[in-house]
Amino acid sequence: MTARLRPAPEFVISEWLNAAEPVSLDRLRGRVVMIEAFQMLCPGCVSQGLPQAQRVRETFREADVAVIGLHSVFEHHNAQTPVALAAFLHEYRIDFPVAVDQPGEDRGLPRTMAAYGLQGTPTLVLIDRQGRRRAQHFGHVPDLCLGAEIMALIAEREDRSIALETAADVSAPACDEAGCVVQSAQGDNPT
Amino acid sequence: MTARLRPAPEFVISEWLNAAEPVSLDRLRGRVVMIEAFQMLCPGCVSQGLPQAQRVRETFREADVAVIGLHSVFEHHNAQTPVALAAFLHEYRIDFPVAVDQPGEDRGLPRTMAAYGLQGTPTLVLIDRQGRRRAQHFGHVPDLCLGAEIMALIAEREDRSIALETAADVSAPACDEAGCVVQSAQGDNPT
Amino acid sequence: MTARLRPAPEFVISEWLNAAEPVSLDRLRGRVVMIEAFQMLCPGCVSQGLPQAQRVRETFREADVAVIGLHSVFEHHNAQTPVALAAFLHEYRIDFPVAVDQPGEDRGLPRTMAAYGLQGTPTLVLIDRQGRRRAQHFGHVPDLCLGAEIMALIAEREDRSIALETAADVSAPACDEAGCVVQSAQGDNPT
Amino acid sequence: MTARLRPAPEFVISEWLNAAEPVSLDRLRGRVVMIEAFQMLCPGCVSQGLPQAQRVRETFREADVAVIGLHSVFEHHNAQTPVALAAFLHEYRIDFPVAVDQPGEDRGLPRTMAAYGLQGTPTLVLIDRQGRRRAQHFGHVPDLCLGAEIMALIAEREDRSIALETAADVSAPACDEAGCVVQSAQGDNPT
Repeated sequence: MTARLRPAPEFVISEWLNAAEPVSLDRLRGRVVMIEAFQMLCPGCVSQGLPQAQRVRETFREADVAVIGLHSVFEHHNAQTPVALAAFLHEYRIDFPVAVDQPGEDRGLPRTMAAYGLQGTPTLVLIDRQGRRRAQHFGHVPDLCLGAEIMALIAEREDRSIALETAADVSAPACDEAGCVVQSAQGDNPT
Repeated sequence: MTARLRPAPEFVISEWLNAAEPVSLDRLRGRVVMIEAFQMLCPGCVSQGLPQAQRVRETFREADVAVIGLHSVFEHHNAQTPVALAAFLHEYRIDFPVAVDQPGEDRGLPRTMAAYGLQGTPTLVLIDRQGRRRAQHFGHVPDLCLGAEIMALIAEREDRSIALETAADVSAPACDEAGCVVQSAQGDNPT
Repeated sequence: MTARLRPAPEFVISEWLNAAEPVSLDRLRGRVVMIEAFQMLCPGCVSQGLPQAQRVRETFREADVAVIGLHSVFEHHNAQTPVALAAFLHEYRIDFPVAVDQPGEDRGLPRTMAAYGLQGTPTLVLIDRQGRRRAQHFGHVPDLCLGAEIMALIAEREDRSIALETAADVSAPACDEAGCVVQSAQGDNPT
Repeated sequence: MTARLRPAPEFVISEWLNAAEPVSLDRLRGRVVMIEAFQMLCPGCVSQGLPQAQRVRETFREADVAVIGLHSVFEHHNAQTPVALAAFLHEYRIDFPVAVDQPGEDRGLPRTMAAYGLQGTPTLVLIDRQGRRRAQHFGHVPDLCLGAEIMALIAEREDRSIALETAADVSAPACDEAGCVVQSAQGDNPT
């Protein structure tokens, strides 16, 4: 049963902001990783997703949880450039590392977004200490749920077999806020 | 080291609302228990503490977490009567069991409040699966922290020795909202 | 046409709180009067109506606008007593004068509530400088609208004939918050 | 005394968005005009100023109040381009006309911003029916105040001499939100 948990796809990134050097999921093994996939002009990302990611960063110990932004642009490519993103991060005081998702061909979905099968932004992905994707939420997640989900992953012993029944589900609730939806999602669906 | 964790004091209650029969901590052994101590005319309880308790009830499985209200009146005794409390619970749609803390002598602190050493309202108490008090927060606790604290207690195996270092702390942060503070707290302090 | 604007019904009050002596609408002639009808155990009153009334008090000059609370109890009579109300006003720091609406016979609608034809709580009533009822809102009114309505009444010259077309409407929008509705409203309808 | 009220400076604009043709203050004579000066990457503009401008547009009749955005870029020129602004307006569903303030020389203050002496963004300017600047607020203005200010200007008869004492003040409160401040403001001060 645990065979269904595969490693999270590696990032395909064109550049990193707020990071001295590229971050790799491999190097984060042993910590819980929270990825906040966003676009700088997505209202639901600005009002909800990114402030929540910042709260996670401030609430949990860095040794337990790594917070990473993923800028996955699938619309308004001329507006949401890396230069604009840098200004945005500065003005909104976002200080965790942010990866610029590598553009797809012909302005299709960017590569990491496609590999993770993201439906739109904001999407929150949780990766466990062993590097396996364990939850993926499109749209808003209440803080109470998110705190519990993260702590459930922190509390797992690394060598312990995972009881899938109690693990956080990979789910994609309908977006009732101003989230941005890709018209037809592609890529691998999470296990 | 674990010797310092003692059972949570049993409740001293004059009556129960929203409950077919009296609830005892003994009977809740095996589940995490969250106690929300409040007064119906305490603004911080009404705007923050009680809605948060309701969210906990709706977020976690009842088999994992029991939410209990504790109405600990230490002021305005003529206003905050059991009859008024019943009307309050009805109007605010609070449906978890609520215990009326037994009044102290001469309108001093009510008995359960004294036994727990509560500083005022709202106060949130977390009790682990083995019936031991593990956290006590006076004032506001962010949802993200609370979700993590509760899940940390859920994740503990019943037979496992507690690593006190990683357990949730018993703490009483200063109240920056409209919490109600007892002038001089009495009773046992939590271990 | 202006003949349809009649004086607002006088209050029928059993006692006043936060007032050295009884307030009468007659004595407030020349000022705009805002009446906030509420019940202390009505959630929509506590979370929206009363804080808004307090903001009005703090925003406009006392010489221009008088803010008055009206405690119109039509349910939970044993809980919402004048003693309980006094404790409530103290804890919520409400400092404008509050009138206790005189109970009706057999626990029917209280008398002022019946005279004004209030549908429930919270209800906001605006009375112009000449003592005429000009607006009545059941449920929530956005601050932007309320600020404009009040200023429209302030700006009227006392001797000027009223252009009914531009006057604030007497309206009763459906209550989309936790307002409390009387099952069958009685009493005079305004204008 | 009324001699101190001069016409509001005309706009110096490089292009208009959400407008079939350029808007001129001259053409708006007879209506109250609210100008919302902003930058698309200014957090206080996004979370407070622009939603408030949209509320004003939806609350007042178009025949009474014209709402106009003014995009006055004084930082991050490479990010806050007209192309990016168009995407921003689309995603945030801002549908009132927005003027792109003409850049100053050497990336100094844009021209309209300089002419109005704006200290930063967001700034809200109110112009009366006769085209005279009557209020200028840097930072957040509560809805209750703004509703009253706008209605005070609507209520003025066009031919009536203005009593400056009762008119809305030109004021610039300290910005307690994430407003963006120009280091040294220049240009004419109002009135």
